Amino acid sequence: MKKVENKKVDKKVANRKFVYLFKEAGNDKALFGGKGANLADMTKLGMPVPQGFIITTEACTQYYADGRMINDAILAQIDDKLASLEKTTGKKFGDVKNPLLVSVRSGARVSMPGMMDTILNLGLNDQVVEGLATLTNNPRFAYDSYRRFIQMFSDVVMQQEKSKYERILDKVKEQKGVQFDKDLTADDLKEIVKLFKDLYKKSQGEEFPQEPKVQLIEAVKAVFRSWDNDRANVYRRMHDIPYEWGTAVNVQSMVFGNMGETSGTGVAFSRNPATGENKLYGEYLMNAQGEDVVAGIRTPQPIASLKKQNPAVYKQFEDIAKKLEKHNKDMQDMEFTIENGKLYMLQTRNGKRTAKAALKVAVDLVKEKLIDEKQALMMLDPKQLDALLHPQFDAAALKKAKVIAEALPASPGAACGKICFTAERAKELGKKEKVVLVRLETSPEDIEGMAASQGILTARGGMTSHAAVVARGMGTACVAGCSALKFAEDEKSFTLNGKKYVEGDLISFDGSTGKIYEGEVKTEPAKISGEFAKIMAWADKYRALQVRTNADQPADAQTAAKFGAEGIGLCRTEHMFFDADRIPAVREMIVSSSVEERKKALAKLLPMQKKDFKGLYKAMEGKAVTIRFLDPPLHEFLPHEDGEIKALAKEMGLTFACLKQTISDLHEVNPMMGHRGLRLAVTYPEIAEMQTQAVIEAAIEVNKEKGYKIVPEIMIPLTCDCKEFKYVRDIVAAKADEIIAKKGVKLTYKIGTMIEIPRAALTADEVAKAGAEFFSFGTNDLTQMTFGFSRDDAGKFLDVYYTKKIFESDPFARLDQNGVGKLVKLAAGLGKEARPDIKLGICGEHGGDPSSVEFCHNVGLTYVSCSPYRVPIARLAAAQANIKNPRK
Amino acid sequence: MKKVENKKVDKKVANRKFVYLFKEAGNDKALFGGKGANLADMTKLGMPVPQGFIITTEACTQYYADGRMINDAILAQIDDKLASLEKTTGKKFGDVKNPLLVSVRSGARVSMPGMMDTILNLGLNDQVVEGLATLTNNPRFAYDSYRRFIQMFSDVVMQQEKSKYERILDKVKEQKGVQFDKDLTADDLKEIVKLFKDLYKKSQGEEFPQEPKVQLIEAVKAVFRSWDNDRANVYRRMHDIPYEWGTAVNVQSMVFGNMGETSGTGVAFSRNPATGENKLYGEYLMNAQGEDVVAGIRTPQPIASLKKQNPAVYKQFEDIAKKLEKHNKDMQDMEFTIENGKLYMLQTRNGKRTAKAALKVAVDLVKEKLIDEKQALMMLDPKQLDALLHPQFDAAALKKAKVIAEALPASPGAACGKICFTAERAKELGKKEKVVLVRLETSPEDIEGMAASQGILTARGGMTSHAAVVARGMGTACVAGCSALKFAEDEKSFTLNGKKYVEGDLISFDGSTGKIYEGEVKTEPAKISGEFAKIMAWADKYRALQVRTNADQPADAQTAAKFGAEGIGLCRTEHMFFDADRIPAVREMIVSSSVEERKKALAKLLPMQKKDFKGLYKAMEGKAVTIRFLDPPLHEFLPHEDGEIKALAKEMGLTFACLKQTISDLHEVNPMMGHRGLRLAVTYPEIAEMQTQAVIEAAIEVNKEKGYKIVPEIMIPLTCDCKEFKYVRDIVAAKADEIIAKKGVKLTYKIGTMIEIPRAALTADEVAKAGAEFFSFGTNDLTQMTFGFSRDDAGKFLDVYYTKKIFESDPFARLDQNGVGKLVKLAAGLGKEARPDIKLGICGEHGGDPSSVEFCHNVGLTYVSCSPYRVPIARLAAAQANIKNPRK
Repeated sequence: MKKVENKKVDKKVANRKFVYLFKEAGNDKALFGGKGANLADMTKLGMPVPQGFIITTEACTQYYADGRMINDAILAQIDDKLASLEKTTGKKFGDVKNPLLVSVRSGARVSMPGMMDTILNLGLNDQVVEGLATLTNNPRFAYDSYRRFIQMFSDVVMQQEKSKYERILDKVKEQKGVQFDKDLTADDLKEIVKLFKDLYKKSQGEEFPQEPKVQLIEAVKAVFRSWDNDRANVYRRMHDIPYEWGTAVNVQSMVFGNMGETSGTGVAFSRNPATGENKLYGEYLMNAQGEDVVAGIRTPQPIASLKKQNPAVYKQFEDIAKKLEKHNKDMQDMEFTIENGKLYMLQTRNGKRTAKAALKVAVDLVKEKLIDEKQALMMLDPKQLDALLHPQFDAAALKKAKVIAEALPASPGAACGKICFTAERAKELGKKEKVVLVRLETSPEDIEGMAASQGILTARGGMTSHAAVVARGMGTACVAGCSALKFAEDEKSFTLNGKKYVEGDLISFDGSTGKIYEGEVKTEPAKISGEFAKIMAWADKYRALQVRTNADQPADAQTAAKFGAEGIGLCRTEHMFFDADRIPAVREMIVSSSVEERKKALAKLLPMQKKDFKGLYKAMEGKAVTIRFLDPPLHEFLPHEDGEIKALAKEMGLTFACLKQTISDLHEVNPMMGHRGLRLAVTYPEIAEMQTQAVIEAAIEVNKEKGYKIVPEIMIPLTCDCKEFKYVRDIVAAKADEIIAKKGVKLTYKIGTMIEIPRAALTADEVAKAGAEFFSFGTNDLTQMTFGFSRDDAGKFLDVYYTKKIFESDPFARLDQNGVGKLVKLAAGLGKEARPDIKLGICGEHGGDPSSVEFCHNVGLTYVSCSPYRVPIARLAAAQANIKNPRK
Repeated sequence: MKKVENKKVDKKVANRKFVYLFKEAGNDKALFGGKGANLADMTKLGMPVPQGFIITTEACTQYYADGRMINDAILAQIDDKLASLEKTTGKKFGDVKNPLLVSVRSGARVSMPGMMDTILNLGLNDQVVEGLATLTNNPRFAYDSYRRFIQMFSDVVMQQEKSKYERILDKVKEQKGVQFDKDLTADDLKEIVKLFKDLYKKSQGEEFPQEPKVQLIEAVKAVFRSWDNDRANVYRRMHDIPYEWGTAVNVQSMVFGNMGETSGTGVAFSRNPATGENKLYGEYLMNAQGEDVVAGIRTPQPIASLKKQNPAVYKQFEDIAKKLEKHNKDMQDMEFTIENGKLYMLQTRNGKRTAKAALKVAVDLVKEKLIDEKQALMMLDPKQLDALLHPQFDAAALKKAKVIAEALPASPGAACGKICFTAERAKELGKKEKVVLVRLETSPEDIEGMAASQGILTARGGMTSHAAVVARGMGTACVAGCSALKFAEDEKSFTLNGKKYVEGDLISFDGSTGKIYEGEVKTEPAKISGEFAKIMAWADKYRALQVRTNADQPADAQTAAKFGAEGIGLCRTEHMFFDADRIPAVREMIVSSSVEERKKALAKLLPMQKKDFKGLYKAMEGKAVTIRFLDPPLHEFLPHEDGEIKALAKEMGLTFACLKQTISDLHEVNPMMGHRGLRLAVTYPEIAEMQTQAVIEAAIEVNKEKGYKIVPEIMIPLTCDCKEFKYVRDIVAAKADEIIAKKGVKLTYKIGTMIEIPRAALTADEVAKAGAEFFSFGTNDLTQMTFGFSRDDAGKFLDVYYTKKIFESDPFARLDQNGVGKLVKLAAGLGKEARPDIKLGICGEHGGDPSSVEFCHNVGLTYVSCSPYRVPIARLAAAQANIKNPRK
């Protein structure tokens, strides 16, 4: 074993405090991590917490800054706090008579369950284990602890293959004819320790380290290192957690749940994390340690059983849970250990919960007067609402569906998809179709495959198994512990209810009921009611931003309206052009060789477009509808393969050569920066005129039919210059005014523009002065142009950018506030300066991303527009933004 | 004839003064136009100027604002000034006894020769012409004036076909058996007037207007309208003249050069406009009017002849010329008329001149103490220097060349190219190869074809013919009036020196000597000496901006150094990759499936790249050399046609399918926003490492060989983010330091980045902090991304943008200061804030555009970098910028 390396440091660093005893630390999660801060809190509240110390997140940052080394100053501070801990506990690190053993656990600012590493029982070696056996008069316990420690150390610290150790364990159990670890005797465990140490030496080329301080520092480094492992990086990207934060390390004196049948360990929630019900909820195992409960190997007992088994401990735990809830004003997720009948609290944190539970807990806490409405809104994660907005099984379809099994309802929601057996396959296939991941059990390596799946089904594990916890966090359906599901040896098929299932077979299950159905079961969209409706009402009460939707079809518009959309912020008219019954006229328009021909083709499109718009107006019942004029380059409407061109030429009565020539003339090197958007209207004003006529006539007719007062908003795409905008604006206004005059009615309409090209943002004052009554930030294109990469092509190199930590999040999912945001802010300011009554919105996909919604609120936009299913998310995010930073 | 329309106006407009008598006007060219301001000046200097009034440029703007109508207020003011003019001259408009006749001429802020329209002899009608005949006792003169007026009015005001009137004139001349117009009798001209009036009625559907005021207002409107004709628009775009300026109209009482043999008209320069020689230079025709001199129909006499013909008038004219030069501190271009032996000045302006003359005049005026060095620099047009930088005939080739004719050396420079007979053909063919335009004579419609040609050769016309004047302005070679050149009837071939020439044949000529050569004559680059060298020395004395060059080859670098480049601002390394002897290794690198393979291929490229850089370092003799790392997407180096792919696969020992797959994997939807620039270095750091090695080793070796102290500058392209830049910078720095350490030498190098993506500009402070020691604004790409259009595709729609006046200039030729410039300014500021010693440059094509150079000076850049031939232009532009706005 190599010596602990160290690094000299300058005074400035040396003088900083990097290590704190629990009783010295405070509630600063940024510095102490969530786990550390809560341990400090519990200590101060006088709860039974095994003492220890925290190595801060700043030490982690320093570790990386020092080139992945722990410097002298930090080493000295660790030594110092270890000495204090020895004094408090009366035990000594490495002492044979009364040894201090510790756990070393990660603890980031926010909880990242399973993402980073833990080592228990640290401080054991060949001598100490004997001492511990003597001291506790329990050699079985001592050797069980030692073998666990060797196993964890070789896995976590030395990154040896975990399965090799497990295989030894299994082999010995087989030899001894026992089923569970707990049935192994002290001698069995001694033998295992020997085998483990041999394997360690063989793998590592040196003996298992016997010096506890070397063990400790290597473990601390392993925790720091685990901040940068692949699954942690993926998790952070999914949850927008900055890499800079780092993790703290908690070194805590061990208490033991594996000392015998009066010892045990467990995890419990102060309320039900699946439903929100206000009742202790959890599991525990006697004579077990740490991971045993969540590993799903032995099936744990429900927390209620503890009431019978040890009423005093149960009562004490229940009281602590209530106290912690009151202190933290939220539902708690706690770890505890019972050592020889005495309760110890190892950790508490605000519990992860399903979206449904989150809403109920928030509403209940308000009822219980623990928090107010604003606090209730602030404690919710808008992204999590997504889970409630996923389709549920269609009631009629469900009646006919055949239940083939039932298991734990681990994370709610209906899932239906093709079966995949590995995370890799799910990730791959999930790009193209709906998949469900079916596994014996999941592990942190599976996280990307889980994210790509509609749902997760496991054969093993309980409500707190890895699969269940992660699925709830993701808002993905999960049914866990389905023991009826029998995997084939190669894990490439399974049988369930007598039928064999292979990859690609369809299966359905409901994470709210735990029921598994044969084949495909039809789903239906979610509804907003109960606590959800209450929360949404509170959100509407506190938000300042309007929320609109992007919708091209009346059905989408209706869905969005049901979810609370206050109007349509973006209707992409080109989607209407692709319809099978329209594309002939569109193509006729494109191949026209004169304005007259083009007008003739457009005249065919006019009644169809008008019908579209009437449908949208009616669906929105008089609310604002923003219609964006034709945007894509015309070649998108024509085929590119010779065969298709031939067929189309015949259909259109053209020669192949002539149509081929037209298509080749329309070819563009960079279509994204080509002849599209309002550039089409500049070249072919008649297209804009036709669309204007459709928008205006439809509004006049629906206003008449329904008595609405629709004010249609016409949105010009791709503006880069004020004169360019004005040219098109004037054409649109002239046509609109002509129609209104001809019809002899009154109709107000607005003309505005997308701001999606950097130059439009830079000259937004001029564009506003040129007559733009509203701006809608098209942050998809704006992101592309501002970064200078095309979304279609960036996939090829962006993965490397994530791996190399150049980018931490996808700028198309989360608005890049630093670059693109600067342009949005600038343009919003210039626009308002030039035209104080200007309406400002956003209609890129960012409109439904909570952090981007907050940004939009802060820069003073009027509304965000997002896809129908994101409307409730945006409503909540908007409320949170206004609570944080109230708009005057 | 329809009545003069008018338009009621509001008081604010009505109260403005739109019309000024010459004696009321001042030297404000923006308001009065150049012609008007100079007429006002000459009036005040007591020179013999026929009196008149100016309708201001503001009236023109008002005309367009009023929907192309002259409003009541302006009409009233015209009436008023006309009355004053009648009083001054003692003549009356429309009076039969003593009629006032006027000319109506355009006059913009800057001279736009031939672009807009003129009408002479206005005020004549069937009665007045008789009165004029009686009054002057010269019916021939009266009817000549009337026929000219009808001809001009029908052409300019009514836009009838000019040639129809000319055909009548030719036919009558033929019938009467005379060669020149001047030989027609009064009766002949009466007959012509009748025929003209009949034609007018037939074409227009109404009689020729007899009411002088109607004639006047229609003529004024025609002049206003001509501001917006096609050729004026093209000319303005070429010369960066804003559309908003508008033109003034000068209404001046007529004097007549066509009153007989003691009358005449002419144009003259105070110095020779081709050479700059300080001597009156010009031409005149007796018994002629207006256009006769420049039309090239009769060959005019040189101005020197006037000395003999009328010494007093010559002396008076010579004195006026000197006086005007002194007053305007510049060489003058004057129009005069002699009416019955009395001299009248019709116009003066600073004369257009060749680049060579411009330099000589500027240097001479300093010698003559009329101006100082700064004024001399300010009076030059940097763009015009281009003419001097064009290749000249190679001396050796010229000795062997066969002179086939000689004519007027109308605009200097060597021209060699394929013959085109129409402007359309020259415009078309000139896109692909070098062409020369050969014409009987040119007219304003030909302007675009002239711009596309290497040179212009005409059979007719003198030094002041349209061809000559326009060619000089463009810096294009011109040989004029080559009467030996005989066109075939269809004007599709000509014979010269006994040989027939058809379209596509090669011909050469020298606009400085007037010599025409058979076939192709080799050319050689220009040199800087004499006045040019003096001006450049002054420019260097007064400028603050450094001037570098864009060069990829040692030969280019040497040319640039000769032209005064102070370093290389951009070496595009990919140009070196395309060489036939390298592309195999480049392709091998691209198809590599592992880092090792790629490194092997790169190792082959290393010595070649090193040799390139050594060549550049040596050519620049120790001056700064900025090397940009590989920029284009890799697919640019691979073929796309199946045939070529097959051949290459064979050559590379790959299967067709495999190579085809690689190429298809590399395909991009928008390559301009794809996997290129430093994105390549992020994915394949080994490419950047190889290039670093070549740059650093080459510098070490050349420093050793030559004793230079080269500080190589490594430029990272396409940065969009500070972390991205830092990632690549660190790789480059590590490699560079490694090599320097290994070689055991000292070498300073700099690492910087292109700023060519909007986000890089927006976050320039972060990029500078991440280690960018210099920024070079890549305004080509920055313009594309800021406008959101691809240069490759924009051609398809930008023409429409010019036609519809959305864009007035090409943003790729002239930096868009309003949009792109904002980003440049922002980034320059942020960069300096973060790193006060940062070097800032520009290396887009704008680096050689004078207005863009001025912008770069004003925003505080350190240098501009442009193509070698633009270096002198940039030096002069930089001096002008610093004279206008001195840098502290």
